[in-house]
Amino acid sequence: MTKYGSELDAAFRALADPTRRALVERLVRSPASVSQLAEPFDASLPTIVEHLRVLERAGIVASEKVGRIRTYRLVPDALTPIGRWVSARRLPQERRLDRLGAHLAHPEGD
Amino acid sequence: MTKYGSELDAAFRALADPTRRALVERLVRSPASVSQLAEPFDASLPTIVEHLRVLERAGIVASEKVGRIRTYRLVPDALTPIGRWVSARRLPQERRLDRLGAHLAHPEGD
Repeated sequence: MTKYGSELDAAFRALADPTRRALVERLVRSPASVSQLAEPFDASLPTIVEHLRVLERAGIVASEKVGRIRTYRLVPDALTPIGRWVSARRLPQERRLDRLGAHLAHPEGD
Repeated sequence: MTKYGSELDAAFRALADPTRRALVERLVRSPASVSQLAEPFDASLPTIVEHLRVLERAGIVASEKVGRIRTYRLVPDALTPIGRWVSARRLPQERRLDRLGAHLAHPEGD
C-alpha cells in the first residue's frame, strides 16, 4: 500500500471506462463546456455529466461555472500518480529496454 | 476510443484495488505461489485467489500449476498500454517538464 492508496483507487477506477478516457483525451487539447464535451458522443447529456462527476471526484478534471456554462479542464499532473505507479512496477528487464528505447526515440503518442 | 478499449478497461479496473496493486508489486520482484502471495495479507486465501483471477483475466498476471502448486508471474509488458495511455494524455506543458526532468534525473521508484 502507498499513501496514495485511495487516490490511486479512484483514478484507476475513473479511467476504467472508454467514455471517460475519451473525455480526458478531449480535455488534453483544451478546456471545454459540458455541451462541447457531449457533442461527439451518442450518450445523453446527463450520462456525460455523470462521467464528468466521476472524473472530478477522482481529481482528474476540475470545473468552473460562469453564468450558465460549466467548463471542465484537466487537472495538471492528475495522471502523474498512475504513471509513476505503473513505471515503478515494470519488470527489471522492461526497465532496461525502456532506457534503451528512450535513447533511440521519443515517441509521444500511441 | 482506441483498439485497446476493452483491454484498457480491464487493466484499469483490475488496478483500482490496493490489494491487487500490492500483489502486482510483489510479483515485480519474482514469481510466487498463491500461499506466498497471500502471506502478507489479512485477507483469506479465497479472497486472494479471486484478486489473482481478476488480474489474470485482465492479462496482467499469468499462472501455471505444477503438481498442487499454482505459481503466478507478471506478464511482461502487461502494464505498457496503461503507461502509454497515461503519458500520451498529459498536458503539453507537463510533457515539456517531463523531458526536462528526464535529463536531470532517472528516479525509478516513487
